[in-house]
Amino acid sequence: MNRSKISSSLQIQIIKEKHDLLPGIMEENKIDCWIIFVRETASNPDPIMGLLAGGDIVWKTAFIFTFKEGKFTKIAIIGNGDANAEKRKRIWDEVIGYDNGFSSLLKTYIDKFNPKKIALNYSLDDVVSDGLSHGMYLNIEQILSTHKEKFISSKPLVHNVRGRKTKTEIDLVQKACELTEEINQIASKKIKVGMKETEIQEIFFEEMENQGVEEAWQRSCCPAIDAGPDKELGHDGPRDDLKIQKGHTLHNDFGVRLNGYCSDIQRMWFFGTEDEIPEELIHAFNSVRDAIKKGSEYIKPGVTGHSVDTIARDYIVSQGYLEYPHALGHQVGTQGHDGGLLLGPLWERYGDVPRGLVEENNIFTLELEVTTKNYGMVSLEEDIVITKDGCRFLVPPQTKFLTL
Amino acid sequence: MNRSKISSSLQIQIIKEKHDLLPGIMEENKIDCWIIFVRETASNPDPIMGLLAGGDIVWKTAFIFTFKEGKFTKIAIIGNGDANAEKRKRIWDEVIGYDNGFSSLLKTYIDKFNPKKIALNYSLDDVVSDGLSHGMYLNIEQILSTHKEKFISSKPLVHNVRGRKTKTEIDLVQKACELTEEINQIASKKIKVGMKETEIQEIFFEEMENQGVEEAWQRSCCPAIDAGPDKELGHDGPRDDLKIQKGHTLHNDFGVRLNGYCSDIQRMWFFGTEDEIPEELIHAFNSVRDAIKKGSEYIKPGVTGHSVDTIARDYIVSQGYLEYPHALGHQVGTQGHDGGLLLGPLWERYGDVPRGLVEENNIFTLELEVTTKNYGMVSLEEDIVITKDGCRFLVPPQTKFLTL
Repeated sequence: MNRSKISSSLQIQIIKEKHDLLPGIMEENKIDCWIIFVRETASNPDPIMGLLAGGDIVWKTAFIFTFKEGKFTKIAIIGNGDANAEKRKRIWDEVIGYDNGFSSLLKTYIDKFNPKKIALNYSLDDVVSDGLSHGMYLNIEQILSTHKEKFISSKPLVHNVRGRKTKTEIDLVQKACELTEEINQIASKKIKVGMKETEIQEIFFEEMENQGVEEAWQRSCCPAIDAGPDKELGHDGPRDDLKIQKGHTLHNDFGVRLNGYCSDIQRMWFFGTEDEIPEELIHAFNSVRDAIKKGSEYIKPGVTGHSVDTIARDYIVSQGYLEYPHALGHQVGTQGHDGGLLLGPLWERYGDVPRGLVEENNIFTLELEVTTKNYGMVSLEEDIVITKDGCRFLVPPQTKFLTL
Repeated sequence: MNRSKISSSLQIQIIKEKHDLLPGIMEENKIDCWIIFVRETASNPDPIMGLLAGGDIVWKTAFIFTFKEGKFTKIAIIGNGDANAEKRKRIWDEVIGYDNGFSSLLKTYIDKFNPKKIALNYSLDDVVSDGLSHGMYLNIEQILSTHKEKFISSKPLVHNVRGRKTKTEIDLVQKACELTEEINQIASKKIKVGMKETEIQEIFFEEMENQGVEEAWQRSCCPAIDAGPDKELGHDGPRDDLKIQKGHTLHNDFGVRLNGYCSDIQRMWFFGTEDEIPEELIHAFNSVRDAIKKGSEYIKPGVTGHSVDTIARDYIVSQGYLEYPHALGHQVGTQGHDGGLLLGPLWERYGDVPRGLVEENNIFTLELEVTTKNYGMVSLEEDIVITKDGCRFLVPPQTKFLTL
């Protein structure tokens, strides 16, 4: 039985929890109207739709949330072919169906409400706030031409809606993390010296099938499998020409999708006894582990994303290693990379994203790697949820090499 | 074993076949540069990427196709974390990796090539040509500000690349259609008078699981199941309060995803003997069947999409029925609704899409419904591939009610 997708009833439950958060989020961000504008979402989905509407629609649809003078209203203007299914969700104040004339329905509704601002799903630097395609932007710009100057990015709304995980969501990510560690343990019993990276990946694929779950990101590198000193880490898949050798390491970067929610965890093995682990590897492992620990001890609601990255980055450099070429952490949820605030450095690549503030109930990875002179890379990744005054690891962090 | 996803090797084969079509398509459309600009495609995919690059990427990536003076070049500017996986596909002339400085790499490359036009994936009316998000459009507008006036929609390129199915693709859609009919036959043996719509849907879900395939569109209405006169058709799911009765019809709208390619077929059952089928239902069935037949006899390369719709629409009206409230046909491929040319009427909702010309190796549905006075709706859908001078049904069309 496939357990990777979320059930309709669980999804509707989470959507209702998210809708309950919306009036507060819209008030905080001083935005009185948010339009999610989509079509044929099976081909071109908007990443926020699963959390606020669910399912797929075919014809042009506007999901409209408004908040004015304490009154929160949510409606759908939707093709008649999709309207009944939408009504049965019982999540909208009104479902307005159409066969023709979508544009005039939308224009009339917005003219009447006359919002101060209209948030749309576009963002230069954040993919999950960027679900509006350029063609659909051109469409809504035509339809609402008299309101055009009110258009703003919905990014702050999306960040709050996605980032503030509900209790249901935190439980789901935790369960995905627990299953990931369970599969790591089962696989540990099957992995042997002499195996190819590709053979090891197959062990994980088999166990994912046994468990009825799917990979959290693309299958070719989920799990990523990296054996020994000759493999560069990255989003690269396993190789047929690299085998596990005694005295070498094994690394994986692995997550599953269980009930629609993901995990993202990295683990390290050593082939030999604990006594045989070279000093160089122990130093590297402890440095990575402790950089993650320092990040986890520092992080709490209200700190900036980049300040968390700096704690870990400075520490790893102080231990004699190069900076890791990526962010310390990203959010995890319905996607392995769930978007929103990054715990990242202020590099061009990350734009303004790391300047945001950490919030309670955010779920982040903490991950980094170092390169050793003789034994390749050492890399770990843990998943944490932000609590009222700190954070909690969703599964216990790795504290030493797993030896096989 | 899950057979719904395409294997990497089969996908790469199709990508190579599509790349071989590209120089001709770019020349025909007089476009010398096409940029597919994406990031985090697991969260926000571009519908064309599966046919021209495959897999997922994390950091900003530009896949660039150029064609000038008979020379076709294809390159990827891609984050170093993704670059190795991209190189191993062996489909690019060059893979340019980066850690930082994507913008300057892209600008330098385009400045040097200095194209006459730059096709980007946006379209007001066609979803599969609209994979560029608005935020990413704003990004590339900044990066290539000196080339901005050259930007045009890639829609004609996307239509040709998606629409001209390769032999491999036609075989895959045909296999999905054959399996759909096989499941329809297996289900026929299990469907009984008295069953609820929801129970009938479960029969299909079970057999899809047995076969290791997934639904071609959203599960809640794939298959759509419609029992008797009280059910309106549409993208609505099955109901718990509607049961099959003797003397009534059953309709389904069903497709599977097998090896990444879809089918989309509608079938009709009658509960009773052939002699018991009311005249009214027979007239409706034959009218729908013959409208599809007339469309199939008319369609061939070079005719407009709307002219095919007109043939079927005029016929069904001549038989005393109302016009069907949708297009006669859409394309089928990696999606149930594969985009591109529609066999549709010239209504606002469809924009200019139906004005395009039918091409050899396009795969279309032919589908329509009528409403009877006493027995609800009668609706059929067939899948055809366009041949050199006509079309071929991928599986035999339904010619009379299946009786149970």
